[in-house]
Amino acid sequence: MKVGILQFTPIFGQVPGNIFTVQKTISQIQADLVVLPELFNTGYQFVTKEEVGELAEPVPNGFTTQRLVEMAQKNGLFIVAGLAERDGDRVYNSAVLVGPRGFVGVYRKAHLFYEEKLWFDPGDGEFPVFDIGPAKIGLMICFDWIFPEVSRILALQGAQVICQPANLVLPYCQGAMVTRAIENRVFTVTANRVGNEHRQADEELRFTGMSQVVDPKGQVLFRLGETEEALRVVEIDPALALDKKATKYNHVFDDRRVDLYGRLRQR
Amino acid sequence: MKVGILQFTPIFGQVPGNIFTVQKTISQIQADLVVLPELFNTGYQFVTKEEVGELAEPVPNGFTTQRLVEMAQKNGLFIVAGLAERDGDRVYNSAVLVGPRGFVGVYRKAHLFYEEKLWFDPGDGEFPVFDIGPAKIGLMICFDWIFPEVSRILALQGAQVICQPANLVLPYCQGAMVTRAIENRVFTVTANRVGNEHRQADEELRFTGMSQVVDPKGQVLFRLGETEEALRVVEIDPALALDKKATKYNHVFDDRRVDLYGRLRQR
Repeated sequence: MKVGILQFTPIFGQVPGNIFTVQKTISQIQADLVVLPELFNTGYQFVTKEEVGELAEPVPNGFTTQRLVEMAQKNGLFIVAGLAERDGDRVYNSAVLVGPRGFVGVYRKAHLFYEEKLWFDPGDGEFPVFDIGPAKIGLMICFDWIFPEVSRILALQGAQVICQPANLVLPYCQGAMVTRAIENRVFTVTANRVGNEHRQADEELRFTGMSQVVDPKGQVLFRLGETEEALRVVEIDPALALDKKATKYNHVFDDRRVDLYGRLRQR
Repeated sequence: MKVGILQFTPIFGQVPGNIFTVQKTISQIQADLVVLPELFNTGYQFVTKEEVGELAEPVPNGFTTQRLVEMAQKNGLFIVAGLAERDGDRVYNSAVLVGPRGFVGVYRKAHLFYEEKLWFDPGDGEFPVFDIGPAKIGLMICFDWIFPEVSRILALQGAQVICQPANLVLPYCQGAMVTRAIENRVFTVTANRVGNEHRQADEELRFTGMSQVVDPKGQVLFRLGETEEALRVVEIDPALALDKKATKYNHVFDDRRVDLYGRLRQR
């Protein structure tokens, strides 16, 4: 299975332009699955609630998701992409999964980061896993990384490849995702953006790139640079993520002492 | 608060000798808390159940725990140390905490690694946190690291400093403990051993050293070498572990979506 990441610089508010950049790039490669950054079509740094309302789109019938479906059909691949979703009067920081047969599913970010709490509603759904044929795919978004519960729940549901659209401004996630891969024995695919945004006088955001794919033993299969724009593809064997044995005596799921984990439900 | 790690090479079966090594070293330093490796008094690689039975000791009245209490009293400090515990006809891979006023508590390793499953019974108790005055101390042992549930539960109970006696043979734990520190915003203290054991013809174990202290932001305050024997002490401020805010909008505990975490209890 060929998994790709497109690390690029979305331009704030330029939805058709950002989609065009993705279209152009994806049409040049061979892959089974490509992961795009969080909020790839709108950019990241919203400054008013109205702005989010204007740029957010319904899923799956909105402009962006339909263009992603066309790309998936035309190129015969699956795409995971972050976008702002509108559902009635609620807006979510979401990730959609689309494929050659159309829209597959959506995840609404459950753990909002920083000022996202001003602009978005937190997701209230399950942490979803989708069987796309070559592998079961779990979706999470950016700051979800700091909560080990998210990747754990995805993996317990059978996710072999955890796809994480991201707009990272802190330097910690890439290392932590190696831990997420090891502790769950899954592949992790982190698609971060690069560039900077400076839409508030007092706050310039610089995104940290270093998009990466990690295998179930914690090997970083590739890690892009901090500023480069690139689409990189790597061949993975998702079956490796079915083997949960850390040693011949240790199975990372069967060894869990759920009998002792009651306190995880406490706040 | 001064926290120390003693990284050394226990000699298999030489309990008084290993204790003497620790006594000698601890008497030369100033610290509030010193963490020793897993099974520091016996060595690691048991080859028969009988051997474990002979070397395991009751806690707190056994020889080793009593010597640790004497050291703690004489030097005015707390000690966390791994040892084989016997309780009736059960044996545990345990860590004790002792201090100037005597025995404080014990943790019995819940997640046994590799052939430990042949020699030890798994712990069935809580993941314990003890208030020693300058800080609340959580105990875990070695392979517990791969289960994010353990450090999470310790931190949710208020642990500011997680002490981890270890006998690591794999190279993954040290990086993962940085993630444990970040995700819970706690200090982690990993005391690994060095040297090798070759008590089975087909299996030589080489321990990986690199004992380390990590702060709640994931900074490695020090990391020892892969082979050196050393006692290193670092000054930490445990109050930093009370601040669970990752940003002004994000609190790593309050942001947890326990409403969505039900699947963590599934096997």
